[in-house]
Amino acid sequence: MQIAVLGSGAMGLSFGSLLIKAGENVVFFDEWSDNIKAVTEHGVILDDVDEKLSLKAKMCTPSSFEGKIELLIVFCKSASLPHMMDSVKKSLTEGTTVLCLMNGLGHPKTLENYVDSSRIVMGVTVVTASMKGAGHAALSGHGKTEVMSLTPSGADKAKMIADLLSRATLPTAVSDNIMFSIWRKACLNGCLNSLCTVLECNMLNLGKQEGTKENFKQIVSEFSLVAAKEGVSINADEVTDYVFAVTQPSFKGASHFPSMYQDLIINKRKTEIDFLNGYVSREGAKYGIPTPYCTLITRLVKAKEGLLGAK
Amino acid sequence: MQIAVLGSGAMGLSFGSLLIKAGENVVFFDEWSDNIKAVTEHGVILDDVDEKLSLKAKMCTPSSFEGKIELLIVFCKSASLPHMMDSVKKSLTEGTTVLCLMNGLGHPKTLENYVDSSRIVMGVTVVTASMKGAGHAALSGHGKTEVMSLTPSGADKAKMIADLLSRATLPTAVSDNIMFSIWRKACLNGCLNSLCTVLECNMLNLGKQEGTKENFKQIVSEFSLVAAKEGVSINADEVTDYVFAVTQPSFKGASHFPSMYQDLIINKRKTEIDFLNGYVSREGAKYGIPTPYCTLITRLVKAKEGLLGAK
Repeated sequence: MQIAVLGSGAMGLSFGSLLIKAGENVVFFDEWSDNIKAVTEHGVILDDVDEKLSLKAKMCTPSSFEGKIELLIVFCKSASLPHMMDSVKKSLTEGTTVLCLMNGLGHPKTLENYVDSSRIVMGVTVVTASMKGAGHAALSGHGKTEVMSLTPSGADKAKMIADLLSRATLPTAVSDNIMFSIWRKACLNGCLNSLCTVLECNMLNLGKQEGTKENFKQIVSEFSLVAAKEGVSINADEVTDYVFAVTQPSFKGASHFPSMYQDLIINKRKTEIDFLNGYVSREGAKYGIPTPYCTLITRLVKAKEGLLGAK
Repeated sequence: MQIAVLGSGAMGLSFGSLLIKAGENVVFFDEWSDNIKAVTEHGVILDDVDEKLSLKAKMCTPSSFEGKIELLIVFCKSASLPHMMDSVKKSLTEGTTVLCLMNGLGHPKTLENYVDSSRIVMGVTVVTASMKGAGHAALSGHGKTEVMSLTPSGADKAKMIADLLSRATLPTAVSDNIMFSIWRKACLNGCLNSLCTVLECNMLNLGKQEGTKENFKQIVSEFSLVAAKEGVSINADEVTDYVFAVTQPSFKGASHFPSMYQDLIINKRKTEIDFLNGYVSREGAKYGIPTPYCTLITRLVKAKEGLLGAK
């Protein structure tokens, strides 16, 4: 099976490398020329939990690929998804399955412009990874991944992917409510990533400030109202508690700075705010649902992008 | 007439010094011991617009003053007003007039606990000043001040103060709607001070960010709804335009960092947010008026106070 990874950053390189190690035929797509050069010349390097992998691999721009793809795993930046899908479009067939494990909201609608919804499998993973340099990623662990097809008729594709990733040492289960998992993770990111970025702090210090839990509750409430319009039921109090727990000293990763903080404050890159609080703000406006917290937070993050000259 | 200045920071020292220069009998009250020591030993130094004044003056803690006060000019930090009024209470008589030129909302209610509302004169000034060190202030200019008594029966007191300040080279007029002026200035500070502090930028750069004017509009709308409950009519669109104009390149002070930024970001001091957006948030809750913008902004500023260890 020809597998392609669209967007070969930390997560794409990690998942792709473990699939190669398991014997799968994988091509990496990316538009970062240093990444392509490094992988073409030296292969992929993956700092796995217990070992350092060095694997021969193919990487090119999506538009320069000549073959057809049976499974496309999308791991690009949210804002570049339409552009990346355009670039890879000619390699898709009526049989191509797309797996999307990206954070954020609204990706199914984008993907449906390119493939039938019965061939879209959505997923959520607790795996995190970081980029060490061109062609070099580091994996934090092999935590649980869950997947589910967008339509019942795609159930066999979700099962196929769960088996494939599990064989590649990424334990994956078929979910019965992936949109809930996606929205819950978006709530988490819409609280922690956004507020840690606005306040320039880690999650532990965010959790210590008076009013943080009440802010989470308001943000999650706005997410839940928009989610309900999309058929996803979120208990705002439960999810608020779930998010708040991550900021407490008892949570081992609480002293980490979330990815949006790293993107914007450290690396001066534009954030994924448009696919978190920004999505809720935009969709809320369409549905007539007031979303003042998400709207103000989106504007504050975008103002910081402007002030820091993020690209 | 025994005049006392309660709170001898930049504004208190400036107004008091100009009154001394005009021949008035002024005592300064403060609780900053270095300030008292400097003034007692060397007098007050005021960098006025065109000259440097050096004036003999009295300064002590309010509680150590033995005499009675005929005019009390309050210029303390908003949060310390009740404590400072407690300290000066024994020097007030039934004839004491209180002039309050402090920024922020809610001060009349505090002052009414100490003197009858007919003897409270509220004011707004465009004069700004900065502290150069203990006993030493610098004045930006002699711009317009307006004053008005809280009740019609106190009109003579407002007139007396306008004449007094005008004679002391601080041109002062009696206003016919001081609460509008106070609320409009609070809107200005509730937009500019708060957002420049959260985003750590000057007013000009704030004005350049997409969404800033819409944020101002929402903040001013919340202020106007609470103001209406207090009998003050604010046209939210007009005041939004008035605030936004201050962030534009055509406004000569636009590149300044507002006082709240200086308090918190530079000097790690607690801000006056509780008397601006925080006041609207608290009073809004009492009236059942939703104030999500003011509430979130208040929490963000307070979170920054906590993160920066502000005192």
